[in-house]
Amino acid sequence: MKKIRVGIYGYGNIAKGVERTIAKNDDISLEAIFTRRDPSKIKTISGVKATSVDKVLDYVNKIDVMLLCGGSATDLPVQGPELAKHFNIVDTFDNHLRISEYLDAVDRQAKAHKKAAIISAGWDPGLFSMMKALFSFLLPEGKSQSFWGPGVSQGHSEAIRRIDGVTGAIQYTVPYEDVMDEVSNGSKKEYTARQKHKRVCYVAVKEGADKEKIAKTIREMPNYFADYDVEINFVSSEVLERDHGKMPHGGHVFRNGETAGGEGYAMSYSMRFGSNPEFTASIMTAFARAAFRLSGENEFGAKTALDIPLSYLSPKGRNEQIKEFL
Amino acid sequence: MKKIRVGIYGYGNIAKGVERTIAKNDDISLEAIFTRRDPSKIKTISGVKATSVDKVLDYVNKIDVMLLCGGSATDLPVQGPELAKHFNIVDTFDNHLRISEYLDAVDRQAKAHKKAAIISAGWDPGLFSMMKALFSFLLPEGKSQSFWGPGVSQGHSEAIRRIDGVTGAIQYTVPYEDVMDEVSNGSKKEYTARQKHKRVCYVAVKEGADKEKIAKTIREMPNYFADYDVEINFVSSEVLERDHGKMPHGGHVFRNGETAGGEGYAMSYSMRFGSNPEFTASIMTAFARAAFRLSGENEFGAKTALDIPLSYLSPKGRNEQIKEFL
Repeated sequence: MKKIRVGIYGYGNIAKGVERTIAKNDDISLEAIFTRRDPSKIKTISGVKATSVDKVLDYVNKIDVMLLCGGSATDLPVQGPELAKHFNIVDTFDNHLRISEYLDAVDRQAKAHKKAAIISAGWDPGLFSMMKALFSFLLPEGKSQSFWGPGVSQGHSEAIRRIDGVTGAIQYTVPYEDVMDEVSNGSKKEYTARQKHKRVCYVAVKEGADKEKIAKTIREMPNYFADYDVEINFVSSEVLERDHGKMPHGGHVFRNGETAGGEGYAMSYSMRFGSNPEFTASIMTAFARAAFRLSGENEFGAKTALDIPLSYLSPKGRNEQIKEFL
Repeated sequence: MKKIRVGIYGYGNIAKGVERTIAKNDDISLEAIFTRRDPSKIKTISGVKATSVDKVLDYVNKIDVMLLCGGSATDLPVQGPELAKHFNIVDTFDNHLRISEYLDAVDRQAKAHKKAAIISAGWDPGLFSMMKALFSFLLPEGKSQSFWGPGVSQGHSEAIRRIDGVTGAIQYTVPYEDVMDEVSNGSKKEYTARQKHKRVCYVAVKEGADKEKIAKTIREMPNYFADYDVEINFVSSEVLERDHGKMPHGGHVFRNGETAGGEGYAMSYSMRFGSNPEFTASIMTAFARAAFRLSGENEFGAKTALDIPLSYLSPKGRNEQIKEFL
C-alpha cells in the first residue's frame, strides 16, 4: 500500500506530537517539516530535516496532505487559505466565533485549486463538536452542557504572562466536580461560567514586583478571569518549571433530556489525557487520512469533522471495520 | 421545506417509538404503517391507519424512507433485501455475527434498484459502533471495553420464557460498578464475561412448577447464562407486570491507552435511558434523514453508521450546525 505523504507546517508542540504519531502509523510517512525559523538550528524528533517555509512550493508534488500546526490568532487565517491553493490541508483552527468565516476563506481556495481541506480538527472544536452534534441529532429534546479540564489553558496562561512584572504563568481550568455530578445525574439546570469552572493560576514574578497589583489585574481581566473564581499562587520560576511543565487536559460533554415518548435519558462523553498537544496531534493525524481520501474522490473544498464519515479516519478496510466495530 | 415521507414496516415497540419521535420532528411526516396482522384490529398512536404489508408496493411513490422495525432473527434477513428493491430503508439489524452477510444482501438489491439503505442503525450496533470506531481511529494505541446495562435484555428474557413451566420472565443485565470504576480509572486489564456483568432474572412460573429445576436450567443455559453469575428471583405474574414492565437500558464504551508520545489518556461514552425501544427509535429517525439525503445524492447501496457524515443526521443547515457545534 502506498503511504500517505504528510508535511508539517509550523514546528511547535502539536507538530512534535504529529511527528511522534506518524512514527507509530504504518500508513503515513512524514516527508517534510516547514518552519519560519532558521532550519539549520532545528533538531527534529524524527530526524526529518526542517525546511524553510520559503521552499514549501518545491514540495507540491511530494506531499499528499499538509498538517498546519500554527496558531489560530494570526498564523492560520493567512496560512490556511494560502496553503489550500497548493495542498490538501488539515488544521485545528479554534477561534469558535470566526470558524464560518475561516471555513469560507479556505473553501474558496480549496475549491478553486481542487484541494481537500479539513479545518478545526482538534478536540474542541473537533471531537467535542462531533459529540455535541451527534448527541443533539439523535436526541433533539434535551440540554447539552460541556466542561473543560482539569487542564492547562494556553490562552489564559499567555494572558497572565503579558502582565507587567510576570515572568511565567500556568493557568489550570478546573471544573467543579459537584456540578458535574449534578449534570451527570441528569440535571438540566443552567449554570453560570463561575458555577462550572474555577481558574487556578501559578505565577512567577520579577523580584520586587507588586504581587497584590498583579493579582488584582488577573482577577479583573475581562473575558479571561472576571467571570470566574480565581485562585492565584505565586511560585518561583523553578517550581513553575518543575511542577507545571506538563500539559494535561480533559473535558466532558453531557446531554440530558427526554425521548419523544417522555422517557428520560442521559448521555455523556468524557476524556482526560496527559498531553494536550499529543492528543490534538492524534486527532489531526486521523483527519489527514480523511483529507487524502476526500481528495482521491475529488471531494474538494473545506470540511469540518461533521462532514466526514467516521470510516474515513481509519486505515482499516471496510470489512475489518465492520467486524471490529459493528 | 418538503417533509421527508416515512413509512414504518412492522408495528411493535420500536415502531411506536418511531411514531412518537416523528410527531416531534417537523421535517418528517409519517405516511403509512405496515403490519402483517389484521390492520383493522390495530389502533395506532398517531392515528395513521395501519395497512397490510400486502399493499406495500402501492406506496412506492408515496414514501421516501421505510423504517424496518422487525426483528433480526427472521424478519429483517427477508424484509431488508426485499424492501430495498423498492424503498430507501433504515433498520436496526443487530445480529453482530451476520452483519457483513446482511449488508451484502441489502447492498446488492439497493444498488441494483438505486436505493439508499442504512443498516444496523440502533444503539448497539449503531451508536456504540460509532463510539468504538471513533475512539480507536483517533487513538490507535489502547484498549476498548464495553459494558451494557443496567437494562432489560429481550433475548435473555425470551430464553427464560421458553423454559417449560415458565409463564413470564424479565432479565436485567447489570454491569459491576467496581469493575467499571477500575476501567474508568484507566485499567487496561482483560476481564471475563463473568467479571463484567451479572444477570438478574425475575421469573413467574406455573403453579406447582419445579423451581429448582427451572433455576438450574437457567444457570446452565449455554451462551446465555452459563458464563455469568446469575441471580434468580421467582415472583408472581402480577409483580412481574407491575415492577418490571419498563424497558430501561444503558451502556458504556471506554478506551484507555497512550498517545504516540507515551502520555496516558482515557475516553468514555456513557448513556442510560428509560426506554430502550424509544431510544432506538430516536436513532433510527435521525438515520432516516441520512438515507433520504444519500438517495438524493444518488449514493445508492447499503451503508452503516460508520459510512455517514454526522451532519446528515440533522435537519439543520450547515451554517446553523457550525454555529451551534463548532
